[in-house]
Amino acid sequence: MTSTAAPAPTTHLSVLLASRPHGEPTPDNFTLERTAVPEPGPDEVLLRTIYLSLDPYMRGRMSDAESYDAPVPVGGVMTGGTVSEVVASNSDLVAVGDVVLALTGWQEYAVVHAKAVRRLDPTRAPLSTALGVLGMPGFTAYAGLLEIGRPQPTETVVVAAAAGPVGSAVGQIAQIKGARAVGIAGGPEKVAYVKDELGFDVALDHRSPDFVDELAAATPEGIDVYFENVGGAVFDAVLPRMNEFGRIPLCGLISQYNATRLPDGPDRSPALLSRILTRSLTVRGFIQREFVKAHYRQFQDDMAGWIADGRVRYREDVVDGLEKAPEAFLGMLRGTNFGKLVVQVGADPTNP
Amino acid sequence: MTSTAAPAPTTHLSVLLASRPHGEPTPDNFTLERTAVPEPGPDEVLLRTIYLSLDPYMRGRMSDAESYDAPVPVGGVMTGGTVSEVVASNSDLVAVGDVVLALTGWQEYAVVHAKAVRRLDPTRAPLSTALGVLGMPGFTAYAGLLEIGRPQPTETVVVAAAAGPVGSAVGQIAQIKGARAVGIAGGPEKVAYVKDELGFDVALDHRSPDFVDELAAATPEGIDVYFENVGGAVFDAVLPRMNEFGRIPLCGLISQYNATRLPDGPDRSPALLSRILTRSLTVRGFIQREFVKAHYRQFQDDMAGWIADGRVRYREDVVDGLEKAPEAFLGMLRGTNFGKLVVQVGADPTNP
Repeated sequence: MTSTAAPAPTTHLSVLLASRPHGEPTPDNFTLERTAVPEPGPDEVLLRTIYLSLDPYMRGRMSDAESYDAPVPVGGVMTGGTVSEVVASNSDLVAVGDVVLALTGWQEYAVVHAKAVRRLDPTRAPLSTALGVLGMPGFTAYAGLLEIGRPQPTETVVVAAAAGPVGSAVGQIAQIKGARAVGIAGGPEKVAYVKDELGFDVALDHRSPDFVDELAAATPEGIDVYFENVGGAVFDAVLPRMNEFGRIPLCGLISQYNATRLPDGPDRSPALLSRILTRSLTVRGFIQREFVKAHYRQFQDDMAGWIADGRVRYREDVVDGLEKAPEAFLGMLRGTNFGKLVVQVGADPTNP
Repeated sequence: MTSTAAPAPTTHLSVLLASRPHGEPTPDNFTLERTAVPEPGPDEVLLRTIYLSLDPYMRGRMSDAESYDAPVPVGGVMTGGTVSEVVASNSDLVAVGDVVLALTGWQEYAVVHAKAVRRLDPTRAPLSTALGVLGMPGFTAYAGLLEIGRPQPTETVVVAAAAGPVGSAVGQIAQIKGARAVGIAGGPEKVAYVKDELGFDVALDHRSPDFVDELAAATPEGIDVYFENVGGAVFDAVLPRMNEFGRIPLCGLISQYNATRLPDGPDRSPALLSRILTRSLTVRGFIQREFVKAHYRQFQDDMAGWIADGRVRYREDVVDGLEKAPEAFLGMLRGTNFGKLVVQVGADPTNP
């Protein structure tokens, strides 16, 4: 017999992929639909979405270009990580009232197998952090920096999108490990935040006309680790300053996600390979999930401790209501958000 | 008092860098000079060159473009590894008659500090192999494949220039480690050698009009390790076939050493980075010397054993006389040599 809390509504909202974008996505690529709330079958649970995470990788899922995951089908619910409350359960694994991490996407309610969720401890940290500094973005920073970047004391670590959820964690963890952190962000407000609030050694604005010179001045000993999540002009400025045996963990290329064709020539890929060769560089693409089994538990302990003792700070940008998700997502691709972008889809029982 | 063997001649030949090449080097970039044979000072030895190694990296030393080593100065002796006989010694470390590995370049005689040479055991293997399969090229293959490529049993390893000293060792070591070896070479004679003499699982001709399709057919499970020493069109064909978590040790880019400008557009570097990201690839530039301290002794034991039991075969292309070195070197850059290119500069006492 299904165990239930207060009855769920009979219908709910979802955001579907209406069409595949060509270049920068537009609101027309999304559609809002109201459908019946599904019922859980055996071993399944009904979840009510509290928070939905919006992340750059979702741009890739909107496209049918080959990637590391299958695309969202046209007409399908947009994918995404969520913090949800269990409102009905046909499983002994999860109880009604539990708050869980799930992958139920852009919708208010969802039915999933009970094994597909991970229970959260609501007393440990604000629930939304499970999608940010204590979740996938924080773990991307942690695993990529420590397992690939491997910064040594006194080395210089550079990270772009330094005000964002991944970049902000990268720089702060680098400093905890004794390295110098140089952050790159877009615009004076974010730059001030990176320097003054997060405490990076240096923060630079990539929109500055003197950015290349400023990067040189900020990295007098060269760059040992460049944590790459942006690509484009920032990468071009960083590459010549990489030291011998430098490491480039590469987890995103947000600057090129909307490109519809390759940039004009010349073809600089031979120059890139030549630089990798002559400086003995390591360029390593990664998706955080490859490190989950070996490192996720330690990450959660470490990060919770660093947050508790004030060594890691974070910022969230919470948008209210599922219907705002498309607009918020499009803004993130243009860099207009400030902090980890989260949509509050429903009431948070721990933060009414 | 200097200990000497039969007196050295009073003058000797050297090959100097006459001018820096623009694009493909020509004979005019070299000049042959006869000068006095130098005399060793305290702790120094006078060496008589027996074999001189010719290697693609020397193209880089002819240029003043920034690289991992300083360029040869215009008017300076061309750099290079040699097998030499000690003909006079002011050191207890090395005796007259010893045969040593040195870095004395394109000349018949040279004076170096006794600590700058490594004594060879002339009974272990033909002396010239100290410049090839048992020397720098063999070690480049060994260290790059095993420390970066890390092929696992049943994985597919692809290597270009597979008839050359590095590529031939890469494929054979890959097979010893249980992997499949696919070699790429230029022209039917080299392809037949790679398949029939070296025993690679597959050998392909990159000049074939159907090369891309042939590579696909030869790698039905994709490519796990691509040992890169060529660049250009071969790299372009390989990249889309790299499997998730594939590794690309990068020790050379001979196809682009003579380029005077970047290729025409579009700029494909974003596509390269995107592929590294979506497939979680590792691209790692390296120069073999970083691995010498940790792995050279084991390499020599392993490789000598593999040669002795017939599991590693090698081929040398020995050119007679120092004055032939420029022409032989230019041919190597065009791929006309077949096997490890070595110049016999003087008599080999072990192979009269």
